[in-house]
Amino acid sequence: MSILMVGSVALDSVQTPHGSAHEALGGSAVYASLSARQFAPVELVGVVGQDFPKEHIRLLRRHGIGLDGLEIVNGGRTFRWGGKYLDNINQRETLFTELGVFENFRPRVPARAAQLPYVFLANIDPQLQLRVLDQCRKPRLVLLDTMNLWIDIRRAALEEALRRVDIILMNEEEALQFAAATSIERAAKALLGFGCKRAIIKKGEHGCLMFSKNGFFAAPALPLPEVVDPTGAGDTFAGGFIGCLAQSGSLSEAAMRQAVVVGTALASFCVEGFGVSQVARLKRQDLRRRIRQLCSAISCPPVRI
Amino acid sequence: MSILMVGSVALDSVQTPHGSAHEALGGSAVYASLSARQFAPVELVGVVGQDFPKEHIRLLRRHGIGLDGLEIVNGGRTFRWGGKYLDNINQRETLFTELGVFENFRPRVPARAAQLPYVFLANIDPQLQLRVLDQCRKPRLVLLDTMNLWIDIRRAALEEALRRVDIILMNEEEALQFAAATSIERAAKALLGFGCKRAIIKKGEHGCLMFSKNGFFAAPALPLPEVVDPTGAGDTFAGGFIGCLAQSGSLSEAAMRQAVVVGTALASFCVEGFGVSQVARLKRQDLRRRIRQLCSAISCPPVRI
Repeated sequence: MSILMVGSVALDSVQTPHGSAHEALGGSAVYASLSARQFAPVELVGVVGQDFPKEHIRLLRRHGIGLDGLEIVNGGRTFRWGGKYLDNINQRETLFTELGVFENFRPRVPARAAQLPYVFLANIDPQLQLRVLDQCRKPRLVLLDTMNLWIDIRRAALEEALRRVDIILMNEEEALQFAAATSIERAAKALLGFGCKRAIIKKGEHGCLMFSKNGFFAAPALPLPEVVDPTGAGDTFAGGFIGCLAQSGSLSEAAMRQAVVVGTALASFCVEGFGVSQVARLKRQDLRRRIRQLCSAISCPPVRI
Repeated sequence: MSILMVGSVALDSVQTPHGSAHEALGGSAVYASLSARQFAPVELVGVVGQDFPKEHIRLLRRHGIGLDGLEIVNGGRTFRWGGKYLDNINQRETLFTELGVFENFRPRVPARAAQLPYVFLANIDPQLQLRVLDQCRKPRLVLLDTMNLWIDIRRAALEEALRRVDIILMNEEEALQFAAATSIERAAKALLGFGCKRAIIKKGEHGCLMFSKNGFFAAPALPLPEVVDPTGAGDTFAGGFIGCLAQSGSLSEAAMRQAVVVGTALASFCVEGFGVSQVARLKRQDLRRRIRQLCSAISCPPVRI
């Protein structure tokens, strides 16, 4: 089954202790689409300016990503983001944010894409996420991501969105901030209290926790010798997660857990290189190997005491 | 099979956002013994002063902990530690350390205890840990813990100890510091390079990773609504881990993984109250319930893509 991806398409300039990238292809919808495309057809809805390099369009097309919903604004300038990761690669500084055409983005979902059963609302203004939801005709599963900025300035819209989606993704700090909680357990309960079925709390190098009203699933991140660039890891995770679900067609607990493992494996490739480079050229056999590693890392025989 | 526990016996004064405890029973050997005692007989080797409250001796005896190796120094003062946890319960400040009789502690392992097959060298000066190892007659499995202080000032002794033990326990920061590494994966490899069979990296609320040359096992911590006092969680984990191994008698990969889960479950009780209060009164059925929760939280069907 196919997936509708709505989010940012950007040119990212990134500095890390391992090097730098200038105006590389990025944005939440791009990372998520390239990741999900491993498993299922994807339609991307986003916006770029006339300056958006044709080679990026070609790369997305080559990966079979549907671009009917990618608006190209004449004379407009593509969203640009600049960030710097410190020696502790878990800490980052935003150097600049140039919204460009993203500032007046009003997502319009093409008629065909509006019929798609799987929807990922990547991190954009929750008012726009709601607008997308209004256009979706038959969503079977909606996954939503957000960020601290929207918790600060778009609380009401974000809460409304939470009531209308199936699974919410937040990183640890965002979840604690949103719920004004001091523990992940309480933050997750508060998120589930909005009526969504699952809350996935991302913890970067510590993996993630997926909560439902029946319990939780914990997936570790793969311990890597080196993290080159963490940008996009969360979106790559989300894309792999929803892609895997769209492929299997199941929404069972087992399918959700398998999808978390697959998303985690994909994110582990993402951080090993700058931008989308690693995921864009990923080989199926390498992905399989990492999935096996992760499954083996959480396998434990029943404990009887 | 029985376990030899060597480490500190202390009076801890602790402040946390949830309250405080004054001169409560503590110390690495105490936490580890009370935890391990759920599964196997324990002989404790440590030192206290004449001021050590008789009620604490009675509590340890009531839990069946062998105290032939607990030296009571006439006129001496028991080791005291004071610490304060900040609003972020993962950060702590040491308020004072009064070594007392611990300063001149020279562990003497009673003849019977020296025959025990399972040995936990809890966090003390590695020179003393080596001295204990010299006295052990038939160790089948030796587990060693340490801290940043010894990495700074007893590097050579610590390295020698690493060459002589089977499993090394460190928290994340200590492992990175010891190996001068920027990733846990590299730090673990460096630790295994000393010849020990396994390295367990403790990550507090994020659980732990157990590395061997064949791969790794990841156990999440149980997400709790509230952490009251984290003191002793690592030692409680270690005690449960080695206790479980001593009970099963197996050193297989499966037994090691099961022991990690059991240690993790025990540590989850430890942090729910001040000092040893929760573990000392733990009921078997409550422990079983948490072990089931943890096993369920890492259970995932095979992923085929």
